[in-house]
Amino acid sequence: MAEETLFQLLHTELVTRAARRDRDPQGEQRPALTTLEGMGFRVGQSLAERLPREAALFREELDVLKFLCKELWGAVFRKQIDNLRTNHQGTYVLQDNRFALLTQMANGHQYLEEAPKFLAFTCGLVRGALSTLGIESVVTADVALLPACKFQVVVQRR
Amino acid sequence: MAEETLFQLLHTELVTRAARRDRDPQGEQRPALTTLEGMGFRVGQSLAERLPREAALFREELDVLKFLCKELWGAVFRKQIDNLRTNHQGTYVLQDNRFALLTQMANGHQYLEEAPKFLAFTCGLVRGALSTLGIESVVTADVALLPACKFQVVVQRR
Repeated sequence: MAEETLFQLLHTELVTRAARRDRDPQGEQRPALTTLEGMGFRVGQSLAERLPREAALFREELDVLKFLCKELWGAVFRKQIDNLRTNHQGTYVLQDNRFALLTQMANGHQYLEEAPKFLAFTCGLVRGALSTLGIESVVTADVALLPACKFQVVVQRR
Repeated sequence: MAEETLFQLLHTELVTRAARRDRDPQGEQRPALTTLEGMGFRVGQSLAERLPREAALFREELDVLKFLCKELWGAVFRKQIDNLRTNHQGTYVLQDNRFALLTQMANGHQYLEEAPKFLAFTCGLVRGALSTLGIESVVTADVALLPACKFQVVVQRR
């Protein structure tokens, strides 16, 4: 069995439950996406503490992002980010051409509206890992053509 | 990083959230343990469908339990159940001498009362996997000395 199956099954279960609670008028008022993002954030924080850091002291912000594209993605999704771009002003775009949590969705425009639920946890995961590595950020995700996906990181300067 | 870390982190997050909701008077009324068990059940069902079954047609109930002790435990916890006992009347006791989801808890009697929260998901996982393999059961767990743990499976005959 593929190593990542257990994580994917558990993630699917989280998404299903969060979506069900959103539809339940008696349920929690906290929107599903916020809940999923929050869970991802805390898992990302903990994961970042456990990843092997060959160079614990990164010189540049870009080095932290490269580390995340390689090590965090490797640990969670068994692949690396396919493309990393930056405007060199604190905005980074991480592109995964075949994002694991979307590959199980059928290809087709009619499913695009379902995509945000499957991305919220990972947005939190990225934000949490960066936070542990000393970078506060806002992370959003965007899908144009399934199962490719772009995560945008905007660093929050103090 | 150990392969199981991601699953363990996500599981810890589930337990924390479920416990928090139990304390919140505005939260869901469904008890945390039931929620965790239900999530485990569905993940167990899906996992059992994906596990490699050398002998898809098990001759005996005991063969199904042995398969679960080896393959399901291997896939999720990277080890096998240490001891399987049965009364040959539909009751099975699976003992794990070092249960992964309890090893992070400190040793000590004062933590024993916290243990059920960390076992509910796995009780569901076992029940769900057995259900997919054609056996309806009631699964409970019991901890006497951390981090050892016993799961009791009582098969429900029709």
